[in-house]
Amino acid sequence: MTGRTTPRPVAIDDLPIRDELRGKSPYGAPQLDVPVQLNTNENPYPLPEPLVERIAERVREAARGLNRYPDRDAVELRTALAAYLSRTSGHPVTTAQVWAANGSNEVIQQLLQTFGGPGRRAIGFEPSYSMHALISRGTGTEWISGPRNDDFTVDPAAAARAIAEHRPDVVFITSPNNPTGTAVEAETVLALYEAAQAARPSLVVVDEAYVEFSHRPSLLPLIEGRPNLVVSRTMSKAFGAAGLRLGYLAADPAVVDAVQLVRLPYHLSAVTQATALAALEHTDTLLGYVEQLKAERDRLVAELRAIGYEVTDSDANFVQFGRFDGAGGAHDAWRRILDRGVLVRDNGVPGWLRVTAGTPAENDAFLDAVRELKKEQST
Amino acid sequence: MTGRTTPRPVAIDDLPIRDELRGKSPYGAPQLDVPVQLNTNENPYPLPEPLVERIAERVREAARGLNRYPDRDAVELRTALAAYLSRTSGHPVTTAQVWAANGSNEVIQQLLQTFGGPGRRAIGFEPSYSMHALISRGTGTEWISGPRNDDFTVDPAAAARAIAEHRPDVVFITSPNNPTGTAVEAETVLALYEAAQAARPSLVVVDEAYVEFSHRPSLLPLIEGRPNLVVSRTMSKAFGAAGLRLGYLAADPAVVDAVQLVRLPYHLSAVTQATALAALEHTDTLLGYVEQLKAERDRLVAELRAIGYEVTDSDANFVQFGRFDGAGGAHDAWRRILDRGVLVRDNGVPGWLRVTAGTPAENDAFLDAVRELKKEQST
Repeated sequence: MTGRTTPRPVAIDDLPIRDELRGKSPYGAPQLDVPVQLNTNENPYPLPEPLVERIAERVREAARGLNRYPDRDAVELRTALAAYLSRTSGHPVTTAQVWAANGSNEVIQQLLQTFGGPGRRAIGFEPSYSMHALISRGTGTEWISGPRNDDFTVDPAAAARAIAEHRPDVVFITSPNNPTGTAVEAETVLALYEAAQAARPSLVVVDEAYVEFSHRPSLLPLIEGRPNLVVSRTMSKAFGAAGLRLGYLAADPAVVDAVQLVRLPYHLSAVTQATALAALEHTDTLLGYVEQLKAERDRLVAELRAIGYEVTDSDANFVQFGRFDGAGGAHDAWRRILDRGVLVRDNGVPGWLRVTAGTPAENDAFLDAVRELKKEQST
Repeated sequence: MTGRTTPRPVAIDDLPIRDELRGKSPYGAPQLDVPVQLNTNENPYPLPEPLVERIAERVREAARGLNRYPDRDAVELRTALAAYLSRTSGHPVTTAQVWAANGSNEVIQQLLQTFGGPGRRAIGFEPSYSMHALISRGTGTEWISGPRNDDFTVDPAAAARAIAEHRPDVVFITSPNNPTGTAVEAETVLALYEAAQAARPSLVVVDEAYVEFSHRPSLLPLIEGRPNLVVSRTMSKAFGAAGLRLGYLAADPAVVDAVQLVRLPYHLSAVTQATALAALEHTDTLLGYVEQLKAERDRLVAELRAIGYEVTDSDANFVQFGRFDGAGGAHDAWRRILDRGVLVRDNGVPGWLRVTAGTPAENDAFLDAVRELKKEQST
């Protein structure tokens, strides 16, 4: 059919790719067709129908001008995001302090292209969101794996020592942390910011992808008077819009100016901007779903503990539970839960698995599965 | 209002950004509010209303599942793009040979992250699309400016010598070329591919962003049996969808596998995929506009020559015209045309300006403006 003249299929390693990519495979959770999918921290609630209609309406309008390039600086969207941040944090945020991109991954990539890159290094406190390390490597930034306590909290003194030792250019602090759900105290962030500035002037990125689910307020007000502190956010989780790919940051306006030096021109499509604007009009409804999910998250924590699992305190829309002893214990448990039609996530943290808070029915199916698992393992 | 505690606004250079970004300003054409905008090679025809409705319909459908991540591999979209390429080139292209991203800029960035990057170099034959150089630098790839003839054609011998001398890892060939409109012959591409493979195994990227407007067929069939040859495309121009940000490539399936090592997971939103799929259903109508634009492009060439301008042969939806002598001659002419309400582009090619083919009325306004300019300059 293709009339290929080469005798066998070409493999990736036959191509002149970069040496460090040889033998690698693409990042991504397994996409399996399973009744109950609680593996990627998606919001289980579809957007309400009035919002679906509003999206169709705003995209129809945007489509009428689709032959023209989109607003390169996404000013209307950044203004709406600033209003959302101001309202929910109680701290005034201006349009000039906000930047948006295709998912928080692209926000992080732009930050690393600006503040990291070849000859520079970044640190995170692991286990944490694995894309911080992957995007660091993808931008030529050396990655340093910083420490966490056994209970997955960040020890300010140990973390500050790692910063003093490695003198990173970029520091990632994920709060609530993924995959553990652990929040980081404001005092710890401040201590690490000071440590990072003392080591060398460096950028501190507080990744708040899951903050709307937290028991604690956002760390956003900390950006005030700290030009090297960035808070990153996403519409994937609290806004129930993982399919939209809309990440954003809040920081000093100079940081926003700086990432514009590396962002691809017209990176954010007119349909993405229109869809995000529609979703921001329905914030109250969407935050109502967040409240339901927080209650379900708390129920998961309580029931898992009642069943006899260890559970890490969670400020996110997911719960880390264990422990599964022995080499491959967690993966074996993952498989047994999957056999019962429930997909959770094995993030590679030895002894632990992560489950996303789904609908009450999904969570019941998950709890039934792990209850049976516990019985099997006790006998 | 912001309660900032720093005594003066923070400047970009106060931040710990990379040294090579210091003193730089963001890329982008000036966005001026002018009646006739012929400066960014946009398609002047809005999408037809039935397509606008179809976009709203497909996005409404996608919005109902927006709480879930999009298809990470965009299989349905890549299949539709492969069908479009097969039909218009007469050469069969499979889904596995196609990859898509947020604009051809992101396609190029992914290729450079995979095949370029620190310690590697890329070459293009300038003047050409300036983003090739900018994204090379943005990914840490050394940029080599290769030669062109005075008439803006590529001399295969001179280009091959530059490749042999610099041994680049990535070679960009833009056909039709931007900003000159010049097509590159298939024989030249083949000669440069051979030269590039002889120097070191290297990737050759044929940027065909404007190929639907060309007098010549696509160079797409050349990918067959040449695993290091990539053809990149966009829906921004022929599909009248600059606002959509949808670029794509066709190459050996191994190249598609390779870029998946560096692409950000879920880089392409569900609304982008839905909108692109809708546009691909209306290909025939959109290619009808392309025929109108080709006729207008030919009229611009003929009339500019009749007025007394030099014009570079064009295979694109824009025309390069001149010459404007003296230092700043082109920029002075740009200003005088702007004073008459018509925005064209000064791409920095000494002595030349670029005008996009617009609607017949827009082109008439442009021709009136440059006719007057010619009279002024003759007296």
